[in-house]
Amino acid sequence: MLKSRISKLFGNERFSSLPAVLLTGQPDIFYFTNFTGCDSWVLLMPKKTIIITDGRYTIQAAQESPDARVVVRKGPILKYLTRILKQYKLETVGVFREEITLHLMDRLSESNEGVQFEPVSNSAVCALREQKDTLEIGRIKRAVRIAETSFLDMLETVHDGITEAELAAEIEYNMRLNGAEKSAFDIIVACGANSSKPHAKTSSNRLKANKPIVIDFGAMYKSYCSDLTRTIWLGRMPGYFRKIYEVCLEAQLEGIASVKPGVLAKEVDNKARRIISRAGLGKYFNHSLGHGFGLDVHELPTLGSRQDVELRPGMVITVEPGIYIPGKGGIRIEDDVLVTKTGCKVLSSLPKMAGEVIF
Amino acid sequence: MLKSRISKLFGNERFSSLPAVLLTGQPDIFYFTNFTGCDSWVLLMPKKTIIITDGRYTIQAAQESPDARVVVRKGPILKYLTRILKQYKLETVGVFREEITLHLMDRLSESNEGVQFEPVSNSAVCALREQKDTLEIGRIKRAVRIAETSFLDMLETVHDGITEAELAAEIEYNMRLNGAEKSAFDIIVACGANSSKPHAKTSSNRLKANKPIVIDFGAMYKSYCSDLTRTIWLGRMPGYFRKIYEVCLEAQLEGIASVKPGVLAKEVDNKARRIISRAGLGKYFNHSLGHGFGLDVHELPTLGSRQDVELRPGMVITVEPGIYIPGKGGIRIEDDVLVTKTGCKVLSSLPKMAGEVIF
Repeated sequence: MLKSRISKLFGNERFSSLPAVLLTGQPDIFYFTNFTGCDSWVLLMPKKTIIITDGRYTIQAAQESPDARVVVRKGPILKYLTRILKQYKLETVGVFREEITLHLMDRLSESNEGVQFEPVSNSAVCALREQKDTLEIGRIKRAVRIAETSFLDMLETVHDGITEAELAAEIEYNMRLNGAEKSAFDIIVACGANSSKPHAKTSSNRLKANKPIVIDFGAMYKSYCSDLTRTIWLGRMPGYFRKIYEVCLEAQLEGIASVKPGVLAKEVDNKARRIISRAGLGKYFNHSLGHGFGLDVHELPTLGSRQDVELRPGMVITVEPGIYIPGKGGIRIEDDVLVTKTGCKVLSSLPKMAGEVIF
Repeated sequence: MLKSRISKLFGNERFSSLPAVLLTGQPDIFYFTNFTGCDSWVLLMPKKTIIITDGRYTIQAAQESPDARVVVRKGPILKYLTRILKQYKLETVGVFREEITLHLMDRLSESNEGVQFEPVSNSAVCALREQKDTLEIGRIKRAVRIAETSFLDMLETVHDGITEAELAAEIEYNMRLNGAEKSAFDIIVACGANSSKPHAKTSSNRLKANKPIVIDFGAMYKSYCSDLTRTIWLGRMPGYFRKIYEVCLEAQLEGIASVKPGVLAKEVDNKARRIISRAGLGKYFNHSLGHGFGLDVHELPTLGSRQDVELRPGMVITVEPGIYIPGKGGIRIEDDVLVTKTGCKVLSSLPKMAGEVIF
C-alpha cells in the first residue's frame, strides 16, 4: 500500500523527474511511511524510503516502518541529511512549497552545496490523500463510531447546570475510554448566544435549558479523524428554533442526497444553501457546507459555493449546514459522508431531531 | 502590556526600520494582541494593530483586542491584506523567515506589487517571550496547579489493570474539570519497557505492578502551559530501580539548585548530567535537561549540554533528567522552575519519592 502511494507520487508528471522528495511534515510522513514520530524527516525515493529520526524513536520507527531505512541522528538533522544526500549521490531533491519555510530553505541550500532543492507544490499529495483506500475508510468508520458512542455516553449524564467545558471534558474522556487516540480537535460546546458563533470557543458558562447547545466533536483513531456536530436542547424546543432546526436538517439531507461521483462540490453546497435561502435565512449560513477529512480534520475537497472540483469515489466529506442567529443562538448538523462508486454512504448514524427529545 | 511588547519589538534594531510586521502564527498573534482566533493574520505597526479575521471571530476579536482594528474578511485573506497595505501606504513589511513558507512568500509578493516583504528572524520575538511578566507567570502557576491537582485526583483511582490510555484520559478529564482549557500536549503514560522511550506513545497496554510508570502531563490555562513528569510505581520499588530513581532525583535537585540569573544553560545541564554520569548511567540520559515553556510547551531557552545562553529573571524552564534502561524501563522527574532575581523558585510542588509510596 505504501509502495503504491509512493509510485503514484513519482508517477505524477511533476515528480517523475525528481530522484527524491524531502518530507518534513506529519501527516504526509505517516501517509508515505506509517511512521508516527515527531521531529523527523523522510527522504522519499522511488525505491527507497529513509527516515531520519532521533533516539526517542529508534524502536518505534523500526516497528512502524519495517521497509524503510531508519537513520538515528545524534546531532543536527541537517548534518545527517547531508550525509545521506552524498551517500545516494542525490543532486536534486523536491521540497514542498507549502511546507518549507524561507529559513529552512536557506539552511538546506547552505549546508548542501551542489544540491538543488526544488520547490514543488504539494497538491499532488493532497490529491492522493483526498481519495481514501479501504484501510483508511475502515479507520475513519471506527473514528466515527467511537465519537458517536462517546456522545451517547455523555448524553446519559448531561443536565443543566454543568458547564460547556465540563460537557466537552465528558465527551473527550469517553472517546479515550472508547478507544480513541485522542480528540481529533478541540471539542466545541456552545450554548445560547455562544452557539451563534460558527467557531465558538467552549467556555465555562453553564448549560441552560431552552437554549440551543451546539456540540462539534470528533475522535482520532489510528491517526484518522471523524468530525460530527449535533445541536441538542434541554427542554421543549419552541417553534422558532424548531423551524430553524427543520430548515437546517432539510438542507443537510438535500445536500447529502446530491453527493455522488461527478457532481461538483459547489453543486452540493448550492443544493443545501438554496433550502436555507428560500426560508429567508441565507445570511445566517455564513460558511461552506463541508470539507474533506482524513489524517487532517480539514482536507480537500472544500464544499464551498465556488468550488468547481468534482467529487470522486473514496472522498470522505462532512456535510454541515449551520444557521446562526446573532445573539440568539445557532443550529448546526454535521455528518460524515463517503462518496461511493454510485452515490454516497453516510458513515455516521447518530439520531437527529426526534419528537420532543433533546436531539 | 501589549503596547510595551510592541514597542520593545520595534525598539529592536532589526525591527526599528520596519514600518510593519506581518504575524501569521499563533501564539505570536496572541502575544501581541490577546486574540485567540485561528486562520487570522495580524499587521503590527508601532502605533496600530490590525487583525484580519473572518465572520466566525467578529465578536471575539472585538472582545479580546479592544485596541486593535478588526477587519472581517469575506473573501481571500490576501485581498484584504492588499487593501490595508495600500490604505496605510506601506511599502515594506517584515515577515518571519521561520514561519513564512515559500508558497506564501510568492503569493504575498505577487499580489502586492511595489511592496517589499522583508524576511527577518523571529529570534527577537522568541527573546521577548522567553522572559515572562507577572501576568504570564500567574497563568503558568495556575496551569501548574491545575495539572498537579488533576494528577492527585487521578492517583485516587489508579490501579493495576487499567490501560495507559485510560490513565491519560483520567488526568486529561480531571484537568478540564479543574479549569484547564485543555491538556497542554498529548499526555504520556508509559509503563515498563514502554517507559524506556523518552518520548513514549501512550498505548492500550495495561499498567502492571512492579514496573516504572512514567507520566508526563501538563495543563493549558488561558493559553499558558505547564509541563510535569512523575514516575510512579505500584507495589514496592526494588533496589535496582530505587537506586536509579535516587540518582535521577539527586541530579534533578542539583540541577534546580544551580538555577539563577547569569548561569549558563549548559552549566545547569552539566550539574545534573554529572550526577548521572558518576553513577555510571550517563549513556541512559540521552536528552537535554530541560527547556523553556509558556505559550508553547517548548520555548527558549534550551537547557542542553552545549547551550551558552545565560539564564535571566522571568524565564520559566523545566528541569527533567531521565534515565532510560532499554527494555527495562525509565525514570523521569520533571518540575517547573522560575528564574528569579536572586535564584529560582520551583513552581510545582507534587511530592516525589516518599518511602514506600508510589511516588
